[in-house]
Amino acid sequence: MIKITLKTNRRSEMVDITARVERVVEEAGFKEGACIIFIPHTTAGVTINENADPSVQSDIQAVLSRMVPAGAGYSHLEGNADSHIKAGLMGSSVCVLVEGGKLQLGTWQGIFFCEFDGPRHRQVWVSFLRE
Amino acid sequence: MIKITLKTNRRSEMVDITARVERVVEEAGFKEGACIIFIPHTTAGVTINENADPSVQSDIQAVLSRMVPAGAGYSHLEGNADSHIKAGLMGSSVCVLVEGGKLQLGTWQGIFFCEFDGPRHRQVWVSFLRE
Amino acid sequence: MIKITLKTNRRSEMVDITARVERVVEEAGFKEGACIIFIPHTTAGVTINENADPSVQSDIQAVLSRMVPAGAGYSHLEGNADSHIKAGLMGSSVCVLVEGGKLQLGTWQGIFFCEFDGPRHRQVWVSFLRE
Repeated sequence: MIKITLKTNRRSEMVDITARVERVVEEAGFKEGACIIFIPHTTAGVTINENADPSVQSDIQAVLSRMVPAGAGYSHLEGNADSHIKAGLMGSSVCVLVEGGKLQLGTWQGIFFCEFDGPRHRQVWVSFLRE
Repeated sequence: MIKITLKTNRRSEMVDITARVERVVEEAGFKEGACIIFIPHTTAGVTINENADPSVQSDIQAVLSRMVPAGAGYSHLEGNADSHIKAGLMGSSVCVLVEGGKLQLGTWQGIFFCEFDGPRHRQVWVSFLRE
Repeated sequence: MIKITLKTNRRSEMVDITARVERVVEEAGFKEGACIIFIPHTTAGVTINENADPSVQSDIQAVLSRMVPAGAGYSHLEGNADSHIKAGLMGSSVCVLVEGGKLQLGTWQGIFFCEFDGPRHRQVWVSFLRE
Protein backbone atom coordinates (compact mmCIF):
# COMPACT_ATOMS: atom_id res chain seq x y z
CA MET A 1 0.00 0.00 0.00
CA ILE A 2 1.31 3.44 -0.95
CA LYS A 3 0.14 6.48 1.01
CA ILE A 4 -0.43 9.81 -0.72
CA THR A 5 -0.76 12.83 1.58
CA LEU A 6 -2.58 16.02 0.71
CA LYS A 7 -3.66 19.27 2.31
CA THR A 8 -7.10 20.62 1.56
CA ASN A 9 -7.89 24.32 1.74
CA ARG A 10 -11.64 24.69 2.13
CA ARG A 11 -14.48 22.97 4.00
CA SER A 12 -15.78 21.42 0.79
CA GLU A 13 -13.42 20.83 -2.11
CA MET A 14 -12.75 18.36 -4.90
CA VAL A 15 -9.03 17.76 -5.47
CA ASP A 16 -7.95 16.14 -8.75
CA ILE A 17 -5.52 13.39 -7.69
CA THR A 18 -5.28 11.65 -11.08
CA ALA A 19 -1.68 12.67 -11.81
CA ARG A 20 -0.54 11.61 -8.33
CA VAL A 21 -2.17 8.19 -8.66
CA GLU A 22 -0.65 7.79 -12.14
CA ARG A 23 2.77 8.52 -10.68
CA VAL A 24 2.25 5.88 -7.96
CA VAL A 25 1.33 3.28 -10.62
CA GLU A 26 4.42 4.18 -12.63
CA GLU A 27 6.81 4.17 -9.68
CA ALA A 28 5.45 0.83 -8.45
CA GLY A 29 6.05 -0.65 -11.91
CA PHE A 30 2.61 -2.27 -11.75
CA LYS A 31 1.53 -3.41 -15.22
CA GLU A 32 -1.77 -5.34 -15.43
CA GLY A 33 -4.78 -5.46 -13.11
CA ALA A 34 -6.57 -2.85 -11.07
CA CYS A 35 -5.67 0.04 -8.83
CA ILE A 36 -7.71 0.59 -5.66
CA ILE A 37 -7.85 4.16 -4.35
CA PHE A 38 -9.09 4.06 -0.74
CA ILE A 39 -9.88 7.01 1.57
CA PRO A 40 -9.22 6.24 5.28
CA HIS A 41 -11.44 9.11 6.49
CA THR A 42 -15.15 9.36 7.36
CA THR A 43 -15.74 12.96 6.29
CA ALA A 44 -14.08 12.66 2.87
CA GLY A 45 -14.74 10.43 -0.11
CA VAL A 46 -13.53 9.73 -3.62
CA THR A 47 -15.22 9.82 -7.01
CA ILE A 48 -14.48 9.73 -10.72
CA ASN A 49 -15.97 12.51 -12.83
CA GLU A 50 -15.22 15.12 -15.50
CA ASN A 51 -11.85 16.82 -15.18
CA ALA A 52 -12.19 19.27 -18.08
CA ASP A 53 -14.61 21.91 -16.79
CA PRO A 54 -14.10 22.72 -13.06
CA SER A 55 -17.73 23.90 -12.87
CA VAL A 56 -18.80 20.22 -12.83
CA GLN A 57 -16.95 19.87 -9.53
CA SER A 58 -18.61 22.95 -8.03
CA ASP A 59 -22.03 21.75 -9.26
CA ILE A 60 -21.50 18.38 -7.54
CA GLN A 61 -20.62 20.15 -4.28
CA ALA A 62 -23.59 22.53 -4.58
CA VAL A 63 -26.09 19.72 -5.17
CA LEU A 64 -24.69 17.64 -2.31
CA SER A 65 -24.98 20.67 -0.01
CA ARG A 66 -28.60 21.18 -1.07
CA MET A 67 -29.42 17.49 -0.52
CA VAL A 68 -27.51 17.33 2.79
CA PRO A 69 -27.54 20.86 4.28
CA ALA A 70 -25.00 21.77 6.98
CA GLY A 71 -26.44 22.21 10.46
CA ALA A 72 -29.89 20.83 9.65
CA GLY A 73 -30.77 19.45 13.09
CA TYR A 74 -28.53 16.38 13.11
CA SER A 75 -28.00 14.16 16.17
CA HIS A 76 -24.21 14.06 15.72
CA LEU A 77 -23.00 17.08 17.68
CA GLU A 78 -19.58 17.73 16.15
CA GLY A 79 -21.01 19.99 13.42
CA ASN A 80 -19.98 17.69 10.61
CA ALA A 81 -22.88 15.23 10.30
CA ASP A 82 -23.41 16.54 6.75
CA SER A 83 -19.75 15.76 5.94
CA HIS A 84 -20.17 12.12 7.04
CA ILE A 85 -23.33 11.71 4.95
CA LYS A 86 -21.81 13.29 1.82
CA ALA A 87 -18.77 11.02 2.21
CA GLY A 88 -21.15 8.04 2.32
CA LEU A 89 -22.90 9.15 -0.87
CA MET A 90 -19.62 9.50 -2.77
CA GLY A 91 -18.03 6.32 -1.37
CA SER A 92 -14.76 5.36 0.26
CA SER A 93 -12.97 3.81 -2.72
CA VAL A 94 -12.77 3.67 -6.49
CA CYS A 95 -11.29 0.99 -8.70
CA VAL A 96 -9.47 1.83 -11.95
CA LEU A 97 -8.17 -0.77 -14.40
CA VAL A 98 -4.46 -0.77 -15.32
CA GLU A 99 -3.08 -1.99 -18.67
CA GLY A 100 0.48 -1.75 -19.91
CA GLY A 101 1.41 0.14 -16.74
CA LYS A 102 -1.18 2.88 -17.40
CA LEU A 103 -4.39 3.80 -15.55
CA GLN A 104 -7.31 3.19 -17.92
CA LEU A 105 -9.68 6.15 -17.69
CA GLY A 106 -12.19 7.52 -20.18
CA THR A 107 -11.29 10.70 -22.12
CA TRP A 108 -12.93 13.10 -19.67
CA GLN A 109 -12.44 11.17 -16.45
CA GLY A 110 -10.35 12.26 -13.48
CA ILE A 111 -10.10 10.88 -9.94
CA PHE A 112 -11.22 13.36 -7.28
CA PHE A 113 -10.56 13.38 -3.56
CA CYS A 114 -13.79 14.81 -2.07
CA GLU A 115 -13.13 16.93 1.03
CA PHE A 116 -16.28 17.62 3.04
CA ASP A 117 -14.82 18.78 6.36
CA GLY A 118 -11.64 20.66 5.57
CA PRO A 119 -9.27 22.26 5.60
CA ARG A 120 -7.30 19.23 6.82
CA HIS A 121 -4.26 17.09 6.21
CA ARG A 122 -5.53 13.94 4.50
CA GLN A 123 -4.32 10.58 3.18
CA VAL A 124 -5.19 8.49 0.14
CA TRP A 125 -4.21 4.81 0.18
CA VAL A 126 -3.35 3.18 -3.16
CA SER A 127 -2.92 -0.51 -3.79
CA PHE A 128 -2.82 -2.93 -6.73
CA LEU A 129 -4.69 -6.12 -7.52
CA ARG A 130 -3.52 -8.70 -10.03
CA GLU A 131 -5.34 -9.62 -13.16
CA MET B 1 -9.88 -5.76 -20.54
CA ILE B 2 -12.89 -6.56 -22.69
CA LYS B 3 -14.99 -3.74 -24.12
CA ILE B 4 -18.75 -4.06 -24.43
CA THR B 5 -20.45 -1.48 -26.64
CA LEU B 6 -24.06 -0.43 -26.34
CA LYS B 7 -26.46 2.12 -27.78
CA THR B 8 -28.86 3.90 -25.45
CA ASN B 9 -32.18 5.25 -26.67
CA ARG B 10 -33.32 7.88 -24.18
CA ARG B 11 -31.79 10.69 -22.11
CA SER B 12 -32.19 8.67 -18.92
CA GLU B 13 -32.30 4.89 -19.08
CA MET B 14 -31.19 1.82 -17.15
CA VAL B 15 -29.93 -0.96 -19.41
CA ASP B 16 -29.65 -4.47 -17.95
CA ILE B 17 -26.18 -5.67 -19.00
CA THR B 18 -26.08 -8.79 -16.79
CA ALA B 19 -26.32 -11.31 -19.66
CA ARG B 20 -23.61 -9.51 -21.64
CA VAL B 21 -21.24 -9.48 -18.67
CA GLU B 22 -21.98 -13.17 -18.02
CA ARG B 23 -21.08 -13.95 -21.63
CA VAL B 24 -17.77 -12.08 -21.26
CA VAL B 25 -16.91 -14.10 -18.14
CA GLU B 26 -17.75 -17.34 -19.95
CA GLU B 27 -15.82 -16.48 -23.13
CA ALA B 28 -12.77 -15.39 -21.11
CA GLY B 29 -12.82 -18.72 -19.28
CA PHE B 30 -12.27 -16.86 -16.02
CA LYS B 31 -13.06 -19.11 -13.05
CA GLU B 32 -12.36 -17.70 -9.56
CA GLY B 33 -12.06 -14.12 -8.31
CA ALA B 34 -13.91 -10.92 -9.11
CA CYS B 35 -15.19 -9.16 -12.17
CA ILE B 36 -14.85 -5.37 -12.36
CA ILE B 37 -17.39 -3.55 -14.52
CA PHE B 38 -16.10 -0.04 -15.22
CA ILE B 39 -17.86 2.82 -17.07
CA PRO B 40 -15.41 5.14 -18.92
CA HIS B 41 -17.95 7.99 -19.16
CA THR B 42 -18.76 10.94 -16.88
CA THR B 43 -22.50 11.19 -17.60
CA ALA B 44 -23.29 7.49 -17.12
CA GLY B 45 -22.81 5.13 -14.20
CA VAL B 46 -23.39 1.55 -13.16
CA THR B 47 -25.38 -0.03 -10.35
CA ILE B 48 -26.70 -3.37 -9.13
CA ASN B 49 -30.40 -3.55 -8.32
CA GLU B 50 -33.60 -5.54 -8.86
CA ASN B 51 -34.04 -6.95 -12.34
CA ALA B 52 -37.50 -8.51 -11.86
CA ASP B 53 -39.86 -5.53 -11.86
CA PRO B 54 -38.81 -2.79 -14.34
CA SER B 55 -40.71 -0.23 -12.24
CA VAL B 56 -37.80 -0.29 -9.75
CA GLN B 57 -35.59 1.07 -12.51
CA SER B 58 -38.04 3.85 -13.39
CA ASP B 59 -38.44 4.72 -9.69
CA ILE B 60 -34.65 5.05 -9.33
CA GLN B 61 -34.55 7.40 -12.33
CA ALA B 62 -37.52 9.42 -11.04
CA VAL B 63 -36.00 9.92 -7.58
CA LEU B 64 -32.60 10.86 -9.01
CA SER B 65 -34.31 13.44 -11.26
CA ARG B 66 -36.15 14.90 -8.28
CA MET B 67 -32.95 15.06 -6.21
CA VAL B 68 -30.89 16.45 -9.12
CA PRO B 69 -33.30 18.31 -11.42
CA ALA B 70 -32.24 19.07 -14.99
CA GLY B 71 -31.51 22.72 -15.76
CA ALA B 72 -31.57 23.88 -12.14
CA GLY B 73 -29.14 26.81 -12.45
CA TYR B 74 -25.89 24.85 -12.70
CA SER B 75 -22.51 26.46 -13.51
CA HIS B 76 -21.61 23.82 -16.11
CA LEU B 77 -23.07 25.19 -19.33
CA GLU B 78 -23.38 22.10 -21.50
CA GLY B 79 -26.89 21.31 -20.19
CA ASN B 80 -25.84 18.05 -18.59
CA ALA B 81 -24.61 19.05 -15.12
CA ASP B 82 -27.41 16.89 -13.69
CA SER B 83 -26.11 13.90 -15.70
CA HIS B 84 -22.61 14.26 -14.22
CA ILE B 85 -23.99 14.46 -10.67
CA LYS B 86 -26.30 11.46 -11.09
CA ALA B 87 -23.37 9.47 -12.51
CA GLY B 88 -21.38 10.39 -9.39
CA LEU B 89 -24.18 9.19 -7.10
CA MET B 90 -24.43 5.81 -8.84
CA GLY B 91 -20.67 5.32 -9.23
CA SER B 92 -18.27 4.41 -12.01
CA SER B 93 -17.76 0.72 -11.27
CA VAL B 94 -19.21 -2.36 -9.59
CA CYS B 95 -17.45 -5.48 -8.44
CA VAL B 96 -19.09 -8.92 -8.69
CA LEU B 97 -17.56 -12.13 -7.33
CA VAL B 98 -16.97 -15.07 -9.70
CA GLU B 99 -17.00 -18.73 -8.61
CA GLY B 100 -16.79 -21.78 -10.84
CA GLY B 101 -16.81 -19.51 -13.89
CA LYS B 102 -20.14 -17.92 -12.90
CA LEU B 103 -21.00 -14.38 -11.75
CA GLN B 104 -22.27 -14.58 -8.17
CA LEU B 105 -25.34 -12.38 -7.86
CA GLY B 106 -28.27 -12.50 -5.44
CA THR B 107 -31.60 -13.91 -6.67
CA TRP B 108 -33.06 -10.54 -7.71
CA GLN B 109 -29.87 -8.74 -8.68
CA GLY B 110 -28.98 -7.48 -12.13
CA ILE B 111 -26.20 -5.17 -13.35
CA PHE B 112 -27.49 -1.94 -14.88
CA PHE B 113 -25.74 0.55 -17.12
CA CYS B 114 -27.17 3.94 -16.04
CA GLU B 115 -27.50 6.36 -18.95
CA PHE B 116 -28.05 9.94 -17.83
CA ASP B 117 -27.23 11.88 -21.02
CA GLY B 118 -28.36 9.73 -23.91
CA PRO B 119 -29.10 8.64 -26.44
CA ARG B 120 -25.46 7.80 -27.10
CA HIS B 121 -23.07 5.06 -28.13
CA ARG B 122 -21.42 3.87 -24.92
CA GLN B 123 -18.76 1.44 -23.66
CA VAL B 124 -18.50 -0.81 -20.63
CA TRP B 125 -15.06 -2.13 -19.67
CA VAL B 126 -14.85 -5.54 -18.03
CA SER B 127 -11.81 -7.04 -16.36
CA PHE B 128 -10.98 -9.84 -13.92
CA LEU B 129 -9.05 -9.98 -10.67
CA ARG B 130 -7.60 -13.16 -9.18
CA GLU B 131 -8.63 -14.65 -5.94
CA MET C 1 -16.36 -16.85 -0.86
CA ILE C 2 -17.36 -16.85 2.80
CA LYS C 3 -20.98 -16.14 3.72
CA ILE C 4 -21.82 -14.19 6.87
CA THR C 5 -25.45 -14.33 7.97
CA LEU C 6 -27.19 -11.73 10.06
CA LYS C 7 -30.63 -10.89 11.35
CA THR C 8 -31.80 -7.29 11.27
CA ASN C 9 -34.36 -5.95 13.73
CA ARG C 10 -35.86 -2.82 12.21
CA ARG C 11 -37.00 -1.58 8.79
CA SER C 12 -33.98 0.72 8.54
CA GLU C 13 -30.83 -0.10 10.43
CA MET C 14 -27.07 0.11 10.12
CA VAL C 15 -25.29 -2.95 11.50
CA ASP C 16 -21.56 -2.69 12.24
CA ILE C 17 -20.05 -5.83 10.66
CA THR C 18 -16.38 -4.82 11.00
CA ALA C 19 -15.51 -7.39 13.69
CA ARG C 20 -17.19 -10.20 11.75
CA VAL C 21 -15.32 -9.33 8.56
CA GLU C 22 -12.05 -9.11 10.53
CA ARG C 23 -12.70 -12.61 11.88
CA VAL C 24 -13.28 -13.93 8.35
CA VAL C 25 -9.96 -12.44 7.18
CA GLU C 26 -8.17 -14.00 10.15
CA GLU C 27 -9.77 -17.43 9.78
CA ALA C 28 -9.05 -17.50 6.04
CA GLY C 29 -5.39 -16.71 6.76
CA PHE C 30 -5.44 -14.16 3.97
CA LYS C 31 -2.43 -11.85 4.23
CA GLU C 32 -1.98 -9.28 1.43
CA GLY C 33 -4.43 -7.78 -1.04
CA ALA C 34 -8.03 -6.65 -0.75
CA CYS C 35 -11.21 -7.87 0.82
CA ILE C 36 -14.47 -7.47 -1.11
CA ILE C 37 -17.64 -7.23 0.98
CA PHE C 38 -20.64 -7.85 -1.31
CA ILE C 39 -24.36 -7.64 -0.43
CA PRO C 40 -26.51 -10.08 -2.49
CA HIS C 41 -29.74 -8.16 -1.79
CA THR C 42 -31.53 -5.32 -3.60
CA THR C 43 -33.03 -3.57 -0.56
CA ALA C 44 -29.86 -3.48 1.52
CA GLY C 45 -26.42 -1.98 0.89
CA VAL C 46 -23.03 -1.55 2.50
CA THR C 47 -20.99 1.49 3.42
CA ILE C 48 -17.93 2.56 5.41
CA ASN C 49 -18.41 5.39 7.90
CA GLU C 50 -17.77 6.50 11.48
CA ASN C 51 -18.14 3.78 14.10
CA ALA C 52 -17.51 5.92 17.19
CA ASP C 53 -20.72 7.94 17.60
CA PRO C 54 -23.87 5.94 16.69
CA SER C 55 -25.69 9.22 15.95
CA VAL C 56 -23.77 9.38 12.64
CA GLN C 57 -25.57 6.20 11.62
CA SER C 58 -28.99 7.55 12.58
CA ASP C 59 -28.25 10.83 10.77
CA ILE C 60 -27.38 8.89 7.60
CA GLN C 61 -30.67 6.99 7.82
CA ALA C 62 -32.65 10.17 8.52
CA VAL C 63 -31.17 12.04 5.54
CA LEU C 64 -31.72 9.08 3.20
CA SER C 65 -35.35 8.89 4.34
CA ARG C 66 -35.82 12.60 3.68
CA MET C 67 -34.23 12.30 0.21
CA VAL C 68 -36.13 9.09 -0.62
CA PRO C 69 -39.38 9.12 1.40
CA ALA C 70 -41.29 5.88 1.91
CA GLY C 71 -44.57 5.59 0.02
CA ALA C 72 -44.03 8.67 -2.14
CA GLY C 73 -46.03 7.55 -5.18
CA TYR C 74 -43.61 5.01 -6.61
CA SER C 75 -44.47 2.67 -9.52
CA HIS C 76 -43.06 -0.41 -7.77
CA LEU C 77 -46.03 -1.76 -5.81
CA GLU C 78 -44.36 -3.87 -3.13
CA GLY C 79 -44.03 -0.92 -0.73
CA ASN C 80 -40.26 -0.96 -0.75
CA ALA C 81 -39.31 1.18 -3.75
CA ASP C 82 -37.57 3.55 -1.31
CA SER C 83 -35.52 0.62 0.03
CA HIS C 84 -34.26 -0.27 -3.47
CA ILE C 85 -33.28 3.34 -4.17
CA LYS C 86 -31.47 3.80 -0.85
CA ALA C 87 -29.60 0.54 -1.48
CA GLY C 88 -28.52 1.94 -4.87
CA LEU C 89 -27.24 5.16 -3.26
CA MET C 90 -25.14 3.28 -0.70
CA GLY C 91 -23.89 0.61 -3.12
CA SER C 92 -23.67 -3.18 -3.22
CA SER C 93 -20.02 -3.64 -2.24
CA VAL C 94 -17.04 -2.09 -0.51
CA CYS C 95 -13.36 -2.89 -0.91
CA VAL C 96 -10.94 -2.79 2.03
CA LEU C 97 -7.17 -3.30 1.73
CA VAL C 98 -5.49 -6.09 3.73
CA GLU C 99 -1.88 -5.97 4.95
CA GLY C 100 -0.16 -8.42 7.25
CA GLY C 101 -3.44 -10.30 7.63
CA LYS C 102 -5.26 -7.22 8.96
CA LEU C 103 -8.05 -5.11 7.42
CA GLN C 104 -6.67 -1.62 6.80
CA LEU C 105 -9.25 0.91 7.95
CA GLY C 106 -8.88 4.52 9.10
CA THR C 107 -9.07 5.28 12.84
CA TRP C 108 -12.80 6.05 12.87
CA GLN C 109 -13.94 3.74 10.07
CA GLY C 110 -16.29 0.79 10.43
CA ILE C 111 -18.06 -1.35 7.82
CA PHE C 112 -21.86 -1.11 8.03
CA PHE C 113 -24.50 -3.39 6.58
CA CYS C 114 -27.33 -1.02 5.60
CA GLU C 115 -30.77 -2.59 6.08
CA PHE C 116 -33.53 -0.66 4.30
CA ASP C 117 -36.36 -3.23 4.29
CA GLY C 118 -36.06 -5.23 7.49
CA PRO C 119 -36.39 -6.96 9.74
CA ARG C 120 -34.98 -9.83 7.67
CA HIS C 121 -32.43 -12.61 7.60
CA ARG C 122 -29.59 -11.35 5.41
CA GLN C 123 -26.25 -12.46 3.96
CA VAL C 124 -22.93 -10.74 3.38
CA TRP C 125 -20.48 -12.35 0.95
CA VAL C 126 -16.77 -11.87 1.61
CA SER C 127 -13.96 -12.71 -0.78
CA PHE C 128 -10.26 -11.91 -1.22
CA LEU C 129 -8.24 -10.58 -4.12
CA ARG C 130 -4.46 -10.94 -4.43
CA GLU C 131 -2.04 -8.12 -4.48
